[in-house]
Amino acid sequence: MSLSELKKTHPDHWKKAAAIRILAADAVHAAKSGHQGMPIGMADVATVLFEKHLKFDASAPDWEDRDRFILSAGHGSMLIYALLHLTGYKDMTMEEIKNFRQWGAKTAGHPEYGHAKGIETTTGPLGQGISNAVGFAMAEQALSARFGKKVVDHYTYVIAGDGCLMEGVSHEAIGLAGKQKLGKLIVLWDDNNITIDGTAELSDVTDQPKRFKAAGWSVFEVDGHDPDAIDAAITAAKNTNTPSMIACKTVIAAGVDGVENTSGGHGYNIKDAQLEQMRKFYDWPYPAYEIPKDVADGWRAIGARGASERQEWEARFAGLSENKQGEFKRVFAGDVPNRLSAVIKRLKKKISEEQPKMATRQSSQAALEVINPIMQETIGGSADLTGSNNTLTADLGRFDADNRKGRHVYYGIREHGMAAAMNGMALHGGIRPYGGTFMCFTDYARPSMRLSALMGVPVVYVMTHDSIGLGEDGPTHQPVEHLAISRATPNTNVFRPADTVETAEAWELAVTSKSTPSVMSLTRQGLRTVRTDHKNKNMTAFGAYTLAKEVAKRQVILMATGSEVEIALDAKEALEAEGIGTRVVSMPCWELFEAQDEQYRKSVLPGGSVRVAVEAGARQGWDRWIFGERGRAGRGAFVGMESFGASAPADELYEKFGITSAVVAKTAKDLLK
Amino acid sequence: MSLSELKKTHPDHWKKAAAIRILAADAVHAAKSGHQGMPIGMADVATVLFEKHLKFDASAPDWEDRDRFILSAGHGSMLIYALLHLTGYKDMTMEEIKNFRQWGAKTAGHPEYGHAKGIETTTGPLGQGISNAVGFAMAEQALSARFGKKVVDHYTYVIAGDGCLMEGVSHEAIGLAGKQKLGKLIVLWDDNNITIDGTAELSDVTDQPKRFKAAGWSVFEVDGHDPDAIDAAITAAKNTNTPSMIACKTVIAAGVDGVENTSGGHGYNIKDAQLEQMRKFYDWPYPAYEIPKDVADGWRAIGARGASERQEWEARFAGLSENKQGEFKRVFAGDVPNRLSAVIKRLKKKISEEQPKMATRQSSQAALEVINPIMQETIGGSADLTGSNNTLTADLGRFDADNRKGRHVYYGIREHGMAAAMNGMALHGGIRPYGGTFMCFTDYARPSMRLSALMGVPVVYVMTHDSIGLGEDGPTHQPVEHLAISRATPNTNVFRPADTVETAEAWELAVTSKSTPSVMSLTRQGLRTVRTDHKNKNMTAFGAYTLAKEVAKRQVILMATGSEVEIALDAKEALEAEGIGTRVVSMPCWELFEAQDEQYRKSVLPGGSVRVAVEAGARQGWDRWIFGERGRAGRGAFVGMESFGASAPADELYEKFGITSAVVAKTAKDLLK
Repeated sequence: MSLSELKKTHPDHWKKAAAIRILAADAVHAAKSGHQGMPIGMADVATVLFEKHLKFDASAPDWEDRDRFILSAGHGSMLIYALLHLTGYKDMTMEEIKNFRQWGAKTAGHPEYGHAKGIETTTGPLGQGISNAVGFAMAEQALSARFGKKVVDHYTYVIAGDGCLMEGVSHEAIGLAGKQKLGKLIVLWDDNNITIDGTAELSDVTDQPKRFKAAGWSVFEVDGHDPDAIDAAITAAKNTNTPSMIACKTVIAAGVDGVENTSGGHGYNIKDAQLEQMRKFYDWPYPAYEIPKDVADGWRAIGARGASERQEWEARFAGLSENKQGEFKRVFAGDVPNRLSAVIKRLKKKISEEQPKMATRQSSQAALEVINPIMQETIGGSADLTGSNNTLTADLGRFDADNRKGRHVYYGIREHGMAAAMNGMALHGGIRPYGGTFMCFTDYARPSMRLSALMGVPVVYVMTHDSIGLGEDGPTHQPVEHLAISRATPNTNVFRPADTVETAEAWELAVTSKSTPSVMSLTRQGLRTVRTDHKNKNMTAFGAYTLAKEVAKRQVILMATGSEVEIALDAKEALEAEGIGTRVVSMPCWELFEAQDEQYRKSVLPGGSVRVAVEAGARQGWDRWIFGERGRAGRGAFVGMESFGASAPADELYEKFGITSAVVAKTAKDLLK
Repeated sequence: MSLSELKKTHPDHWKKAAAIRILAADAVHAAKSGHQGMPIGMADVATVLFEKHLKFDASAPDWEDRDRFILSAGHGSMLIYALLHLTGYKDMTMEEIKNFRQWGAKTAGHPEYGHAKGIETTTGPLGQGISNAVGFAMAEQALSARFGKKVVDHYTYVIAGDGCLMEGVSHEAIGLAGKQKLGKLIVLWDDNNITIDGTAELSDVTDQPKRFKAAGWSVFEVDGHDPDAIDAAITAAKNTNTPSMIACKTVIAAGVDGVENTSGGHGYNIKDAQLEQMRKFYDWPYPAYEIPKDVADGWRAIGARGASERQEWEARFAGLSENKQGEFKRVFAGDVPNRLSAVIKRLKKKISEEQPKMATRQSSQAALEVINPIMQETIGGSADLTGSNNTLTADLGRFDADNRKGRHVYYGIREHGMAAAMNGMALHGGIRPYGGTFMCFTDYARPSMRLSALMGVPVVYVMTHDSIGLGEDGPTHQPVEHLAISRATPNTNVFRPADTVETAEAWELAVTSKSTPSVMSLTRQGLRTVRTDHKNKNMTAFGAYTLAKEVAKRQVILMATGSEVEIALDAKEALEAEGIGTRVVSMPCWELFEAQDEQYRKSVLPGGSVRVAVEAGARQGWDRWIFGERGRAGRGAFVGMESFGASAPADELYEKFGITSAVVAKTAKDLLK
């Protein structure tokens, strides 16, 4: 439908959509950066979605059963800011719109989760929103199965652009959604055939409808400027048993002379004269940031449309048993059950007594075996390495279209899609997701892992086979730099536990976290129990602690994590035998250690000793502990990896790469010379 | 075709394929790890490919015009090791097969580039091989256009499994190949419906043939145990104008009782009795590692099949002009032209004289403008940020199906696919690829960037918008931990140049490198020229150097990279004004600085001064320079980022995050107290 026809046939819609278009153009113009092309192009689709379909109540943005709206094409952030403002979200004042992209504003360049209600997830890195949405839709199904359709029964809508669909993660997300038959996931594709570099054909000739069909989706194709067609397609999509993709043919920067339908219309590029022309085209004589009363009222009514539905929902919720209400509230608040601390302590005590030799990936399963039964909100999974990652506990069952009460997801060979889906589940609320792969494949999941940290969602990454200890699979599968990568990332707790006790402690911290993701770095190979004296206190919560005190006068401090702690203990034994007092400090989580006060840190790492750090990974970051906390300058060393690994049995690799107690002891003695 | 039928109808093929199957089973059994299921399942397909189609000469594995064979499903490494051994590659002795997965063997757990001839790329991380292959096929087209079909005219074959096709990067690769109409790329999909966790349907219901067709590929479907059908499909695939996918329906671990057609057949799992039964099934009475003469001879003949074709090629090559021959040899050797040094010096001199203020992404383009005309082997590109990454120089033209002489690739929004394709181009030989995206999207390209480093291929990553200096796009687009990520990765040169002179030097080093990839960390924002005294010497080659000597007696050393060098210079000015002698050290490449001898390092960073490092990124790694090289312990500090960034104009962000010359000067003075 041409825009002039649209104006004639749908005058009320025309005005509502114009409000979005003009707001977007004005804000981008004022900021001298940002993207008006997409909001202008998709204004009709978004207007229909919000006016006719989206279940929400702007006055109650946290309503758990609202439909979720995800702007995957996050660069078009002004679209969502405009929608939130117009529908009356309290957070999104006109002042915020005026401050688009300025310091301290809720209206960041890309939508940032936590800045304002109604922003369900952080988008901008392309492909993330659509992939998060798969997690939202899975969470809805899981919670609906658990708490009943009366209280959980909503759709997840996504607006995605060409960029989202070209990114590889979209393939993983689409495949996962198709397999999982997520009938309440609806993706609106902004099919404008424009990318930053030019027309989409410059780089892509994919037939997107065919591609989605191949993955088990229902596909609809509509004119994205025809409100009735959009409405009908959304209605149809809501009634399928598969996820749906609606290809909305739109014109980028529609109605802006000179840039309409070109890559020039994408980002900040509109001159004053064009803005004026655009205002005329859209019959919008009002100055910037002024919305005429009839349009404002119309949009406010949309924002209030869901109020009665929400009240009905609240009545239904009140009809649940008190227990069920409490549990629902608990899981949405992200609180742990009171029993957690006790079951963890019990496990620790048992382990300290029995002192088994176990790989920490098995320790991780042992911890999950006691956590999962009392935290029904966990949903585990693995990227096709279930048996290796030890993520499947006895009580979980398989999450599938036929069994929404199952709590273990077979994500397939989709590390990135898994991570993005976990972000979505955590953001949805009510679910605490964890998922596993080999630690080396942190690389594949990185973009979503970063977003866990940036958004502050407590996803748990179960990263097993965390060093050359992986053995024969060789350097492609042996992490070297991956601890450094996660540690360099702000707001990420990296746990590298040394035995089952520390692993249980790490899990307790991970599932208790409300705003920080956790990376569990776990071994393939067996480790002996090093925490043989039971302590109720969670020592891992200190980040680092003295595991074995010096016997003779302290001359050496050995610092280690994970599988290298037992190497440090053996080195200590050798050194003490020669009368060299040696302390072993286990450092399962640097981030938590840094958060301790200076006095505690100094008590663990006092000056006046030489220091040797041992970790089967890259040195980067360790100098902070070797030299940075006022040790004897220059009297410290690192024993670890200086290159990629190799393919051979694990024990041999430790020998060949020189990560042994003999090397550690010798290194310490050389420093004392 | 059932295997018993195959045995009857194709007795010679049967024996040849049995040799692969038994070798794979024996080697995995001996190593007690690895994967026999795929080599056994795909032995028929591989035998047909090598016997009937693959253009190669085992006695001349470096023949530039050989067909490339890529085992994307790298866990099935015994398939390629068996093929290389049987066809007579000198490197791949039976001794190596016997040492499968052992220390020092060429037969690593996954195929490692550089271990043995015939291994064209390192695979194992799933999806990489198929994506590298796109680069191989692009390189073939580019070189064919440049040097003529007489000397470059070959196919690229890939064996890929379900894992490769589920990974997101495969989507990017397939889309790029479809758009680029790479008719000489042929993917053989091991359609065995088994993944590690179970049947593929457990996690995926994608209709792969439909999916490939949607991306513009030709698709064939065959019985993977029917040699004639396989042969016919490959023949047909060779005659299309699009890339081809041949779905080969196979049975994993075929013929091994108890594990055939199950996920149990995938990896090491076969007991002695099963091995014995398998031998009977395949009529193979020979002990482990013994190949009967008739079978050995048959395979050797296949390995020698291409000798005459190679000789004909050599004759054709000899018919090229001497210039063309020399250029061909030069680009395949990866040598730079003699003129390179002179054009770089000329650019440096001009810049030092004119002292422009430029963003280093523009500086990068300025360097490329002088490099590209004299190095016709470069192929640039960008993941849909051409104008922002400044990768397109005047003379390149667009690489496309209609213009194979073009040298700039519009990769689309496919950072990962771009990186993988660049690896493929570099591995092919004759091409020196570089490609750009925003530095933050290092995350998306990480798995392939790691493989550049592991394989030692000198790809250049042009990473622009390298800090909060990116401004309004906000934290999703602002790298913080990304310098640390690349620096933590072995064998990676991370260049963060401070101005156009350093950028030109960095480019000279990057395009001269033969075995190390380079990451160029480049600003969005303008920087002033800091190298105002022209030096012919490439100072960036030292990694770090004294940019501005102390005037007063040295008390402070300021270390900085990139956009923060000018901040350090301003701080120095303020400190010197107060009589505090201050040295400014520019550190454009840590890795090269670490490679200098200790004497040089000490001359740049002598003891006895307080040290302040300034970089708009994470601290991780800096402590090495602040404390590690015997500075005054505890008397050093870092000025940089401690969190994610924010959305606002760049200058404001530098103020708000405290990365200013005033903060640096104050930090130094506080340390002197």
